[in-house]
Amino acid sequence: MSRTWTLQEVKQHNTSSSCWVVIKDKVYDVTEFLPEHPGGSKIILKYAGRDATAVYEPIHPLDALDKNLPPDKHLGSLDTSTIAALKKERDTRKKTQDELRVEREQRRKPAINRILSLRDMEEVALKVMSHKVMAYYLSAADDEITSNENSRAFSRFFFHPRVLRPISQVDTSTTILGYKSAIPVLASGAGLAQLGHPLGEANITRGCGRTNIIQMVSSHASLSSSEIAATRVSPEQPLFFQLYKHRDNEIAERRVREVVELGYNAIFLTVDAPVSANRERDIRAPFELEDQEREAQAQELGEKQQTAGETSREPGNAETEIEGEVNLLGTAGALVASVDLGMTFKETIPWLRSITKLPIVIKGIQCVADAVLATEAGVDGILLSNHGGRQLEYSLPPLEVLYRIRKERPDVFEKLEVYIDGGIRRGTDVLKALCLGAKAVGLGRAFLYAQSAYGEAGVVQTVRILQREIILGMRLLGVTSVNELVPGLVERMSWQPILARL
Amino acid sequence: MSRTWTLQEVKQHNTSSSCWVVIKDKVYDVTEFLPEHPGGSKIILKYAGRDATAVYEPIHPLDALDKNLPPDKHLGSLDTSTIAALKKERDTRKKTQDELRVEREQRRKPAINRILSLRDMEEVALKVMSHKVMAYYLSAADDEITSNENSRAFSRFFFHPRVLRPISQVDTSTTILGYKSAIPVLASGAGLAQLGHPLGEANITRGCGRTNIIQMVSSHASLSSSEIAATRVSPEQPLFFQLYKHRDNEIAERRVREVVELGYNAIFLTVDAPVSANRERDIRAPFELEDQEREAQAQELGEKQQTAGETSREPGNAETEIEGEVNLLGTAGALVASVDLGMTFKETIPWLRSITKLPIVIKGIQCVADAVLATEAGVDGILLSNHGGRQLEYSLPPLEVLYRIRKERPDVFEKLEVYIDGGIRRGTDVLKALCLGAKAVGLGRAFLYAQSAYGEAGVVQTVRILQREIILGMRLLGVTSVNELVPGLVERMSWQPILARL
Amino acid sequence: MSRTWTLQEVKQHNTSSSCWVVIKDKVYDVTEFLPEHPGGSKIILKYAGRDATAVYEPIHPLDALDKNLPPDKHLGSLDTSTIAALKKERDTRKKTQDELRVEREQRRKPAINRILSLRDMEEVALKVMSHKVMAYYLSAADDEITSNENSRAFSRFFFHPRVLRPISQVDTSTTILGYKSAIPVLASGAGLAQLGHPLGEANITRGCGRTNIIQMVSSHASLSSSEIAATRVSPEQPLFFQLYKHRDNEIAERRVREVVELGYNAIFLTVDAPVSANRERDIRAPFELEDQEREAQAQELGEKQQTAGETSREPGNAETEIEGEVNLLGTAGALVASVDLGMTFKETIPWLRSITKLPIVIKGIQCVADAVLATEAGVDGILLSNHGGRQLEYSLPPLEVLYRIRKERPDVFEKLEVYIDGGIRRGTDVLKALCLGAKAVGLGRAFLYAQSAYGEAGVVQTVRILQREIILGMRLLGVTSVNELVPGLVERMSWQPILARL
Amino acid sequence: MSRTWTLQEVKQHNTSSSCWVVIKDKVYDVTEFLPEHPGGSKIILKYAGRDATAVYEPIHPLDALDKNLPPDKHLGSLDTSTIAALKKERDTRKKTQDELRVEREQRRKPAINRILSLRDMEEVALKVMSHKVMAYYLSAADDEITSNENSRAFSRFFFHPRVLRPISQVDTSTTILGYKSAIPVLASGAGLAQLGHPLGEANITRGCGRTNIIQMVSSHASLSSSEIAATRVSPEQPLFFQLYKHRDNEIAERRVREVVELGYNAIFLTVDAPVSANRERDIRAPFELEDQEREAQAQELGEKQQTAGETSREPGNAETEIEGEVNLLGTAGALVASVDLGMTFKETIPWLRSITKLPIVIKGIQCVADAVLATEAGVDGILLSNHGGRQLEYSLPPLEVLYRIRKERPDVFEKLEVYIDGGIRRGTDVLKALCLGAKAVGLGRAFLYAQSAYGEAGVVQTVRILQREIILGMRLLGVTSVNELVPGLVERMSWQPILARL
Repeated sequence: MSRTWTLQEVKQHNTSSSCWVVIKDKVYDVTEFLPEHPGGSKIILKYAGRDATAVYEPIHPLDALDKNLPPDKHLGSLDTSTIAALKKERDTRKKTQDELRVEREQRRKPAINRILSLRDMEEVALKVMSHKVMAYYLSAADDEITSNENSRAFSRFFFHPRVLRPISQVDTSTTILGYKSAIPVLASGAGLAQLGHPLGEANITRGCGRTNIIQMVSSHASLSSSEIAATRVSPEQPLFFQLYKHRDNEIAERRVREVVELGYNAIFLTVDAPVSANRERDIRAPFELEDQEREAQAQELGEKQQTAGETSREPGNAETEIEGEVNLLGTAGALVASVDLGMTFKETIPWLRSITKLPIVIKGIQCVADAVLATEAGVDGILLSNHGGRQLEYSLPPLEVLYRIRKERPDVFEKLEVYIDGGIRRGTDVLKALCLGAKAVGLGRAFLYAQSAYGEAGVVQTVRILQREIILGMRLLGVTSVNELVPGLVERMSWQPILARL
Repeated sequence: MSRTWTLQEVKQHNTSSSCWVVIKDKVYDVTEFLPEHPGGSKIILKYAGRDATAVYEPIHPLDALDKNLPPDKHLGSLDTSTIAALKKERDTRKKTQDELRVEREQRRKPAINRILSLRDMEEVALKVMSHKVMAYYLSAADDEITSNENSRAFSRFFFHPRVLRPISQVDTSTTILGYKSAIPVLASGAGLAQLGHPLGEANITRGCGRTNIIQMVSSHASLSSSEIAATRVSPEQPLFFQLYKHRDNEIAERRVREVVELGYNAIFLTVDAPVSANRERDIRAPFELEDQEREAQAQELGEKQQTAGETSREPGNAETEIEGEVNLLGTAGALVASVDLGMTFKETIPWLRSITKLPIVIKGIQCVADAVLATEAGVDGILLSNHGGRQLEYSLPPLEVLYRIRKERPDVFEKLEVYIDGGIRRGTDVLKALCLGAKAVGLGRAFLYAQSAYGEAGVVQTVRILQREIILGMRLLGVTSVNELVPGLVERMSWQPILARL
Repeated sequence: MSRTWTLQEVKQHNTSSSCWVVIKDKVYDVTEFLPEHPGGSKIILKYAGRDATAVYEPIHPLDALDKNLPPDKHLGSLDTSTIAALKKERDTRKKTQDELRVEREQRRKPAINRILSLRDMEEVALKVMSHKVMAYYLSAADDEITSNENSRAFSRFFFHPRVLRPISQVDTSTTILGYKSAIPVLASGAGLAQLGHPLGEANITRGCGRTNIIQMVSSHASLSSSEIAATRVSPEQPLFFQLYKHRDNEIAERRVREVVELGYNAIFLTVDAPVSANRERDIRAPFELEDQEREAQAQELGEKQQTAGETSREPGNAETEIEGEVNLLGTAGALVASVDLGMTFKETIPWLRSITKLPIVIKGIQCVADAVLATEAGVDGILLSNHGGRQLEYSLPPLEVLYRIRKERPDVFEKLEVYIDGGIRRGTDVLKALCLGAKAVGLGRAFLYAQSAYGEAGVVQTVRILQREIILGMRLLGVTSVNELVPGLVERMSWQPILARL
Repeated sequence: MSRTWTLQEVKQHNTSSSCWVVIKDKVYDVTEFLPEHPGGSKIILKYAGRDATAVYEPIHPLDALDKNLPPDKHLGSLDTSTIAALKKERDTRKKTQDELRVEREQRRKPAINRILSLRDMEEVALKVMSHKVMAYYLSAADDEITSNENSRAFSRFFFHPRVLRPISQVDTSTTILGYKSAIPVLASGAGLAQLGHPLGEANITRGCGRTNIIQMVSSHASLSSSEIAATRVSPEQPLFFQLYKHRDNEIAERRVREVVELGYNAIFLTVDAPVSANRERDIRAPFELEDQEREAQAQELGEKQQTAGETSREPGNAETEIEGEVNLLGTAGALVASVDLGMTFKETIPWLRSITKLPIVIKGIQCVADAVLATEAGVDGILLSNHGGRQLEYSLPPLEVLYRIRKERPDVFEKLEVYIDGGIRRGTDVLKALCLGAKAVGLGRAFLYAQSAYGEAGVVQTVRILQREIILGMRLLGVTSVNELVPGLVERMSWQPILARL
């Protein structure tokens, strides 16, 4: 079905009864898909009969169209002259304020060897991203309190360092589910890496391969599981798969079998993000960009007295626009639309066990009681996580959950491997978690930032920084292997230190 | 007694021995009322023989004149030409700085669908109000510490979320005193809504009706109890009545019988605001406006070196003005002037019970001991409230009182329904209160803000935001009905998270 | 010895072997006094042979010269033409930046009825004072931490208010050592009131008399004990005397007998300020004024590139000025120079008891152990005080000491009256102290500020504000007399509320 | 081997196979030293064949070349005309922005008698230093949290001052390891003092001698141990030696015997800094200076639109510079390169004891367990220290370690002398440590700052300030000798006061 179209022809199909859109010069009939679109039909109808590439690309996985539209709705391409015209239009299009800002920041970006800490990396990354991507990566639930507290929790733990112990040889390596890792750090699953860098998750895969740590690949990666598997530095490089279980067991099973086949080495079943959360920073980003542009235009016109939004709006009519184009699901909303809301310890774990012999880890345990249930369900590990503060506001910081398991149910550590993620920025954070019983810690956004700022090199630099900090910390604690990191080396304070940077 | 008057005639009566005022083109003889005016006679005498509409309107309930002045003091209207002259004077009057600011902010007001949270709503509302109304709505006791702490108390409670539980069907509804409510939220009594929007409390009544939550109507509503009852979306829409008991039992009884007759469904006896409190922000507002105007005038005259207040005052003479026009009672002072200061558990509750069979709730319990006394007095419910921090500074935050009842006297929850209000901004706040034992929570100012910013649509949007947040929070906690919200799901921290916005 | 002198004659005596100074047109020979000057001889020698009035006046009690210089060193007056010349010089002298600022602020001072709280009063007072006086009144020990914590301690105590109790009649009065006080508030001893207002302590005496509270008169008052006694509104107005015991028992006894004779009603023996403390804000004030003037001059000369201190100083020579004109004792240093450093419970209290039958109160108890020793010494009361944070930095806040006495040794309250001062700003602060067992609270700086800003009227306004706040607080707590203020009405929180203003 | 060279000749040797450098007009062949350079060979090669004085001087001890290069690599001097040419080049070199700033600040420096507190001193010192030196002195580990917490720990301890005790005679003196000290304060070892002042550690030695306190001399002093010994004010002035044990026992032994010979009186074995830590402020300083200069140049050229780093860099190529000139070891990195990483309580202490009869103190104990091990090892004292927060981030503040020893193992105080350093700024800090059981406290950076700002006079002023504060504090606590400072005089609060300055 590969004929070509002119924009004129496409333009006819601009209603809900016949709705075509152009994406990357291809023409699609999305009429029947309208009611199924997780982000609502309204946003599609806005682009009915038009080129939607610019709004489509940054918020959809690459294979979304193939997965969601039957082949007969792929109507073909635009004709060559239309394509040329569209390209010219794009090339001569005036850049937005935000695009100009990003270009400026890219020029100012420091040399990578000046990146001394993960916070330096984050700072650079957030500057060189578009406002929309920044808002998506950075955003967390509601007022982003849990996101901040995840990190602050570490600052309440101080060390009891031991001196006069031999420390010349330090070994930072450990195993995770039996796989060797150079440092007790995991690249936690985090989706849509191509928003930050054209090579996306491949940067993380190769960076982890080069530094000998393990990547947990998100179901929501911009690249497919097979593309990522193919990008490994060697066939032995382990990969873990972060599963969002589809509500349809058959589809879910297919997904699991696919990654088993591809040689993935463990399944991390995600349980803390069954539904799309309230990430206001992300939802708000489009308004803010609109306002920014409007202000810039107004200034240009010398109409300085007309401030944002003043022009066309009559007082009072704002009240009537109850339904509009605000996408409350945010960038990531569509991604979890098909997640199974009926999962249970009793059924889901045995079901998964029946499909694969791979180690199973539950990702998203948030309290002691569920950690105990996980040991009873017989999984191989649990990842204490509140999804980086992106799901339930006021979920206890994972380090605090770990601390409660250590105090209330230390037997959990003997029955499965415990990991945590959320808020880790420093080698000392890693060491604190290990002292309390964690086998390894996960970092999610840190690797997204690293690859967004410097691609694969950023990922390598991130691991190197952590390794250097971990070695230094172990020496100054008086230990030479991760097994020596014991509860007695840390103490939880009743006070909170003052942090220069949160 | 309906003759007409000229301003010239009125002007003769400008002393305390004969004091007439014009309000909305009507002429009143207030001479005998002077000593009874809760705000003091001085403020009235300032307008003796003049038009007092502008200062009268924003701070008096609509029926205040009818209730307080005998018919023979309603002297009639101004004559037509005087009315026309006054109108012209008003129309050509130069706008104040504050009026100009409000007009500017009204034009900038965002579309309502961009209001994502109750704090967004509050922010818009506070901007589009006059300074005086803002000061009245926002003001709280003394340094407004309790008002802030009410809200901060919630931030000390974190969740222990449960995972791997079926959450596809979530029911947020509950009953309050047997009446169905779509979410466990009550529109708490809050007076003078017309200060913020011309339709006043009717916005709340209709908004609640449309979203199926219950409104508690204030004794100090700008509209009368019957007007509000008449505005319901259906005759079945429940309404609760917030009673400020008059010191004269007969008047009080009349008031109760009136609302019973009108079909109100419960009586909330207010006990935390027997006297007018110290709300400095409110008291200060008139000075601030004066200073603002003076500064604007000075600037206009190019007299920039003459700063506010410098012009006419000799050093030292400030000391002599001990008595002046400062109204320490503030906007709301007059409203509570007749409240019964002799109420007791032993006498007042049985008295009320003897008048009506409606459920009785005590609004304003602030400690465990009084919660226990309330169970002994046999009321149907208690509303833990410190009047939004507007009465006694350093009254314990209601959530802390709730927490103490849960720990010290959990039997209270079995004997009556417990509600709390004060400081609630988020769905997670509602869920925390319910986990600790509350049957529902009240929001007062939130609805005043909502209707001030967007009228009825604002009220609807507020309920929708809360409902969306509650559904999301329940799912992420692993619960599907409000009955499953139990103490084990929350934990009180010894630390205080950092809040971006208080 | 009353001849007259010319400046020319005085000028000859400008060395340490013959050192004359002029103060208020009188000539003094201070040669022999030089080594005894508590502030050091250097500062005097700087003015040898010159008019020292401007630097002398603001930091010395009025009768200092008479007390310290024998009559034969009072050499007489300047001659008339010299006096006239000096006066002309003063009158035509250019005003300093700080004097201009004070004049500006005096013109801007709000009418007194706009002073709604003690903090409002403080704010105005600090603005209308000279920088030097502000620094002296406001300054506290070291980094002023204790001074702040005194006040912050109150904010950790919240109320358990009781409702449904009869509150129409409220009595705020109490007795202090048997003397009636309209509210449980004492004007605590605070010296040098004339620095803030020409009438000095008389403002406080008359203000207290008019509002029926009791003044404790400082040994360091600008007015003499007899002047203050004479200024009472009636002979029955009680006055307490704050004694700094002189190291010479005879002098000390004379002092006590003098005030007994004058009709004072109690002796408050000061024990928390035996030596001059480190009040850096006060010590620094002269430098800051110097720098301010130098900068102003430089700007005037258009020499904007020459910043403060740059002109005349060679790099490095700063190191040599180890000894200079810095007065480490500060404004108040001289005042305590003769205090007895050998006082003990065992000897001093019986000695004092042997001289007078007046009630004895120890002012400056700072821990539970000393409170107990005071009961054993048989005094009539103790004032828990750390001298407003002006003496030992990190002395426990008085409210915390009171709280510890309540918890550890409640028997103390049965044996003597306990008062506290330090950090009290609100009626609720007073009520908290009374709930914990205090009989009354003292306010020191609050009254200095009040009289500095508005003279006697300021003192009256301060008492009225407190009384209004106390009445309101008692009603909202459900109590009608100070006896009903019991420990159960307050609770100490483990958290600290956020304070808008410290 | 003393011939002379021209720059032309030196320039030939600019590769790793023949690498010469010029330092202070002397020529050195460092080819064979390249692989041994603790800071890496890269930084040296950057100056191969060139004058490296400017980068060499501020970060190397004076005798580094003699110690590290065999005599035959000292090739001789530059010839006279080359020296003259280089000098001219230096003299006419344009000053950097930072040099200009330092000159400006030196002119503004206040007279030393205006320095009232240690914080005043620090403030001045940090201003008059070059940015690089400031960064080195001030820098601490990671985010400098422990450095701040060391100081904040003191603020949680409040006093229970005692009154009515005789306090006229106060003796602040004590003994440390049997040596008399005027106040219980030690000048703790701190290296590279010449970075701050040309006379370096000699300022501290003489200042301590003049005020009768004891200096602990760092292994990393800019002056040699013998130079410092020679600078004492009398042969009796005690000196302690801070030993960084060399990994080669023979070299280490030689070092100890050397200082024993020179008359040093005790050995402080450093155990908290075996490796170079992560001091980002220090590492970052060179970049910041570069950026500052680039910006200044750009501005000068009127190229204001070209911001720092924009000019020459293409977007993306930043990623490739993984290895560059960033010196992660920082200024002090080279200093600890040879420290023994195999030290143990069991072997190292007996080894040291076998070499010398001097008292042995372990410097850097950071937990109770190691304090106990130290008593078992039989040393004479321990210095609780986390190296001023410069080594392990989140090491417990020394005062908290002291507090835990007091609570858990008070027997430690009977077996050896306990000192602490880190975060001490005030006399009250000293008193708190002594109340908890410390025999004396150490100050490190405070003395570096003092001598940097005012040389020897600064050191004297620092001791005088502390002594004045200690006397005052003792009097106000009611004690007259250090023995009376007991645990009951302090209490640890659960709250944290607000500090104006950290």
